[in-house]
Amino acid sequence: MQQLLTEIRIAGFGGQGVILAAVVIGKAAAIFEGGYATMTQSFGPEARGGSSSAQVILSREPILYPYVAQPDVLVVMSQEAYTRFAPQLKPGGILIAERELVKMDPIPSGELVYTVPATRLAEELGRKVVLNIVMVGFFGAVTKLVEPDALRQAVADSVPPAMQKLNLQAFDKGFEYGSALMAEIGAGDNDAVVSTLELK
Amino acid sequence: MQQLLTEIRIAGFGGQGVILAAVVIGKAAAIFEGGYATMTQSFGPEARGGSSSAQVILSREPILYPYVAQPDVLVVMSQEAYTRFAPQLKPGGILIAERELVKMDPIPSGELVYTVPATRLAEELGRKVVLNIVMVGFFGAVTKLVEPDALRQAVADSVPPAMQKLNLQAFDKGFEYGSALMAEIGAGDNDAVVSTLELK
Repeated sequence: MQQLLTEIRIAGFGGQGVILAAVVIGKAAAIFEGGYATMTQSFGPEARGGSSSAQVILSREPILYPYVAQPDVLVVMSQEAYTRFAPQLKPGGILIAERELVKMDPIPSGELVYTVPATRLAEELGRKVVLNIVMVGFFGAVTKLVEPDALRQAVADSVPPAMQKLNLQAFDKGFEYGSALMAEIGAGDNDAVVSTLELK
Repeated sequence: MQQLLTEIRIAGFGGQGVILAAVVIGKAAAIFEGGYATMTQSFGPEARGGSSSAQVILSREPILYPYVAQPDVLVVMSQEAYTRFAPQLKPGGILIAERELVKMDPIPSGELVYTVPATRLAEELGRKVVLNIVMVGFFGAVTKLVEPDALRQAVADSVPPAMQKLNLQAFDKGFEYGSALMAEIGAGDNDAVVSTLELK
């Protein structure tokens, strides 16, 4: 983690596994990397409407106010989530979107935008339901906020034993897709994204 | 809910279902009663040590800072959770404890203390694992913060279909035990507990 505190919002439909994705990222950063993390889930009108969102804060120190006002990183898996939360993203922040579910018009400017066909990659594994973990793998590759090994351990630790293999394959698919994208656009291991985070 | 904002902390061992208990209470208050709620889960040294805790905030309005500093209600399912969090309870707050897992010495003063043999009640159903939902039922009966029907709906909505019957039985066991206790000590429907909450 390059900053002392990193704020992440993950949002999508109910049933897409938004909360599990948030738990995996929080657990990876805290339990398997020795940092601190909180995951906050809101219940209210938004949840009644079939949408789902979670806030994750990663920190090197204990977290006193686990509230995300302006996320550094926004992960969206539905058009509604994009429309609602994109305006809150910090200038220069990272926007990660499921490519087929989110249409951006106009294309956002002043943000690092990365898209992934997570639904299609999940379908290649025969189980569309692991789309959320494909997103987590892609998140790991493009943000480099949490080590991939810690994320893999957190995936294995957060799903039932019978689902581990499938979910780890989903993680790897997303991670490999993100790594290939970063190589293609010439972002080195600690290059483009991190330098942007530091510029804020 | 008698106050605008009610803060609840639920704590115990990892594996006791602390997070699910917190989700059920938050969901009941928000989705099935039309209020707002947040559930915050922390990952960090405490989670690595095998303990688990969650913070729930119930409100009539959207919640800006979902942080519990001094809970109004503390639910503990382990000795360690009691030792750690009891000093943070608000004066005049409600302390709910699993009777066989938590020994209080000295007996706390200035707080409303309610204990329930949730492990034993869960074992009567043949599944000790539903101890957390017994605690939720008991919580509903003694705090009267959330309607029992909303809590029952939230239980049914939060567990896999095959587990619904068992968990609803667990809820009813805890709720009936709590209702009998309140009748025995002469607390009316909106009597002792609520008046204490209002006195703060």
